[in-house]
Amino acid sequence: MGAIARRRFLAAGGAFAAMAAIGRPRPAAAQAAPASAGPPDPKLVEDLVAANRILVDQGVLDGYGHVSVRHDRDASRYLMSRSIAPELVTAVDVMEYDLDSNPVDARGRTSYLERFIHGEIYKLRPDVKAVVHSHSPSVIPFGVTGVPLRPLYHMSAFLVGGAPVWDIRAATGEATDMLVRTPALGQALARSLGTAPVALMRGHGNVIVGTALPQVVFRSVYTEVNARLQGQAMALGAPITYLDPGEAQKAEASIAGTLARPWELWKKKALAR
Amino acid sequence: MGAIARRRFLAAGGAFAAMAAIGRPRPAAAQAAPASAGPPDPKLVEDLVAANRILVDQGVLDGYGHVSVRHDRDASRYLMSRSIAPELVTAVDVMEYDLDSNPVDARGRTSYLERFIHGEIYKLRPDVKAVVHSHSPSVIPFGVTGVPLRPLYHMSAFLVGGAPVWDIRAATGEATDMLVRTPALGQALARSLGTAPVALMRGHGNVIVGTALPQVVFRSVYTEVNARLQGQAMALGAPITYLDPGEAQKAEASIAGTLARPWELWKKKALAR
Amino acid sequence: MGAIARRRFLAAGGAFAAMAAIGRPRPAAAQAAPASAGPPDPKLVEDLVAANRILVDQGVLDGYGHVSVRHDRDASRYLMSRSIAPELVTAVDVMEYDLDSNPVDARGRTSYLERFIHGEIYKLRPDVKAVVHSHSPSVIPFGVTGVPLRPLYHMSAFLVGGAPVWDIRAATGEATDMLVRTPALGQALARSLGTAPVALMRGHGNVIVGTALPQVVFRSVYTEVNARLQGQAMALGAPITYLDPGEAQKAEASIAGTLARPWELWKKKALAR
Amino acid sequence: MGAIARRRFLAAGGAFAAMAAIGRPRPAAAQAAPASAGPPDPKLVEDLVAANRILVDQGVLDGYGHVSVRHDRDASRYLMSRSIAPELVTAVDVMEYDLDSNPVDARGRTSYLERFIHGEIYKLRPDVKAVVHSHSPSVIPFGVTGVPLRPLYHMSAFLVGGAPVWDIRAATGEATDMLVRTPALGQALARSLGTAPVALMRGHGNVIVGTALPQVVFRSVYTEVNARLQGQAMALGAPITYLDPGEAQKAEASIAGTLARPWELWKKKALAR
Repeated sequence: MGAIARRRFLAAGGAFAAMAAIGRPRPAAAQAAPASAGPPDPKLVEDLVAANRILVDQGVLDGYGHVSVRHDRDASRYLMSRSIAPELVTAVDVMEYDLDSNPVDARGRTSYLERFIHGEIYKLRPDVKAVVHSHSPSVIPFGVTGVPLRPLYHMSAFLVGGAPVWDIRAATGEATDMLVRTPALGQALARSLGTAPVALMRGHGNVIVGTALPQVVFRSVYTEVNARLQGQAMALGAPITYLDPGEAQKAEASIAGTLARPWELWKKKALAR
Repeated sequence: MGAIARRRFLAAGGAFAAMAAIGRPRPAAAQAAPASAGPPDPKLVEDLVAANRILVDQGVLDGYGHVSVRHDRDASRYLMSRSIAPELVTAVDVMEYDLDSNPVDARGRTSYLERFIHGEIYKLRPDVKAVVHSHSPSVIPFGVTGVPLRPLYHMSAFLVGGAPVWDIRAATGEATDMLVRTPALGQALARSLGTAPVALMRGHGNVIVGTALPQVVFRSVYTEVNARLQGQAMALGAPITYLDPGEAQKAEASIAGTLARPWELWKKKALAR
Repeated sequence: MGAIARRRFLAAGGAFAAMAAIGRPRPAAAQAAPASAGPPDPKLVEDLVAANRILVDQGVLDGYGHVSVRHDRDASRYLMSRSIAPELVTAVDVMEYDLDSNPVDARGRTSYLERFIHGEIYKLRPDVKAVVHSHSPSVIPFGVTGVPLRPLYHMSAFLVGGAPVWDIRAATGEATDMLVRTPALGQALARSLGTAPVALMRGHGNVIVGTALPQVVFRSVYTEVNARLQGQAMALGAPITYLDPGEAQKAEASIAGTLARPWELWKKKALAR
Repeated sequence: MGAIARRRFLAAGGAFAAMAAIGRPRPAAAQAAPASAGPPDPKLVEDLVAANRILVDQGVLDGYGHVSVRHDRDASRYLMSRSIAPELVTAVDVMEYDLDSNPVDARGRTSYLERFIHGEIYKLRPDVKAVVHSHSPSVIPFGVTGVPLRPLYHMSAFLVGGAPVWDIRAATGEATDMLVRTPALGQALARSLGTAPVALMRGHGNVIVGTALPQVVFRSVYTEVNARLQGQAMALGAPITYLDPGEAQKAEASIAGTLARPWELWKKKALAR
């Protein structure tokens, strides 16, 4: 993080601290802004900034898509950038939301239209601490064909249970603009995700969840890689041996112990710019 | 835009202002240079410079191809760089043309041979304010096979009506050098485009139109991405669900409201160099 | 190598020299740390650092994978980085191991879980002086389909004898976490490799060996390239003429005389950062 | 060209001038070094340096391959770098050869083993002024399958007559190391090339010729692009309309008039480093 970014980051921390000092009364009505859970751990905000940039570096995000993390002080709040390109996110852009995806302190900042993806998943999945929504390119062909995305190797072992394909048309029964722009659509997607780590969104992209930012970033990177390599493997025209459930379960547990290795590398490079 | 580029840009603005001061009599004959519509909005010129560089950054243009924008003061004039590689375009390279694609003030600067693509489309399509002609690589295979380019996801919803394939041989009835080097060829291409946003040019490239530079750049980027991903989806060997017309119409309208997000990102990076 | 890296490198040399001064008694029990073979040739350590970075530059390694080299003073010792991302390796990260893959002087540094790949191959293959383990992406599809990887051209002539596919499930008879985390698994992989230069690891990656770092890096780069091009050649749908054994044997011998050319280029670029 | 490179370049010019002052007696025997044609045009040497770097930038060359140009003062001499990676070539590395590929003034500098590709083509093709030998990756699959490389679009119109595939095994009747390491092999390849601009070398790479460096570089870049896109077009599974002979002849003539556009761009970027 450069000097300017760091200054902004501290400024943002100060803003959160100011909010926390006010106290945390629940809003009486939906119209009122929800109370803040107080300033998040600055390292969490730094990791969220890094996650945005890493996912651009790795070809998962382009000018679109978003990453969120559950607030470390309050499981009923999450943090996500205001509506800007992920590559440009700095600490001051990070906003706090309640699980209905209402911003705590918008101060004129615009929210992502599809923030309900995040809030509704946090509601249904207490185990989830971080969410990525992307148009990860190599994954798109799987979402529109229904060809199952399956784990080619240990790095993508988390795919072993399959990635459900959510079709917004089935959820609504009619043509939409494909965007998850309401709590109801977010909830339908969250239900389709179920207990899986990844759900594909037909004609749109995917959503990936994890227990922390390094894990959800890792899963996003290797979902993209697996999709690309699976397409190449299928083109070779011979039967493919995917990881079996026993292998995948063990592999995922082992890989979990190594996530700091790529994460520290990616973060170092992402924040050096 | 660096200091030198900005200085050049102001110099160009000065040149336009000088031309405007002379007045705007229509030329009596085709041989005479058409009158200038006066200096364009400097921001429009800056956006045109940015559009050239962005399309190189995004792999749509290489050493060839061109971008134009309709003049903001006069719908019968358009602006486009002199004949140089898009990556090198700066404000001083921007020339003004009438819709017959005659340069207003060439001052020895060479024009793109295929400028008629732009002029003839502006004539037939009053709604069009910006045009890109490229050899966008992933799109070439669709133009030479006639396999329909169709929208895989919301980002390329604008493809829903299909992208007509224009074959210059059908237009002329004989072998050509493939280039749109006359007004008649430009007009034939413009007619083939009809009301579509994209037309493929068999054995050559494509032309893409929009109501503004950010839109035509967005469409050019996601036409390339869609073509690449459609090829990958087709290779998976299962039926593909494309966006249906209702979805595409709604998605395109929604995406239209978000174009500033990638545009500002792309422009910032393109002009920082 | 920048000034700081060079300083670290000399510091590491000093550490090795200090260890060597202590003498080299064989450890009485497996629990005791093995004795050091003394400080390796600093150029060998520099080449090992370069090899790590080159393989990242060339898309063979990402945040995972490792490279080792046999100690120049003692064939029963090898050198490899502590457990960090290959891109970050500097001379101070290089550790010494015995062929049972016990670190000579860990000083709190963590070892790669799969170091047994290296130690067990060095045991069975006296000719091998350098080993790369990677998840080289284009090679993964060959490992999971069993489609034989074969040499398309002289650069990958070393593939002519075929690359055996090692399936960890066959070695263990049960589901594992896919990692070569024990000496027994390392030995099973080494036996599967036999006298070949490359073995594919189903659902995981591959291992490549050579008589020196430049050769093993060259083989790693061109195994990745050959896999990618072989997939493309197979997709053309016509019979492929691979190098025949006579051609491959002669080509490999000739190429061996040219390895310094790419190696010096790659090393220069890798250490310039 | 940076200050240091320029200094070297002038130094090289000086060396050539010194050689020229000695005069140009033909050597009495093959063992004697041939006489120099005198110092080449410094711009030609600069273009040759640029061509090496451009072809690396464009993915045609990696650590291998070479570019040559016929001497501007003497059609029986050509210029080519000593045996180093193309990316590292500067003016002082440029050597002069006679058409038997004997170096005029080696001064201990090593020559490319396969320089006979260049000399023998210059002998048989007086029209040829520049030659590129590469392992251009996307072209390899065509050489090993015999699937004809054909022009998808105007940029690669020069491919219309087909690119003959030269198989070294057919030329020699036995297994070789695949390298064109003798005058006889160079002559066999040159005869296979005939009057074409491109010949594929089975299991090895290709050779491309032109009337000047900008043309041979352009052809090398678009042969690679055409091969990649042709593979993609074939995968779409529908009949492909290639340029017909009439179109291709006219397109190539027109494109010839525009080569300065990409060349100046590429050269500027290549020499700026």
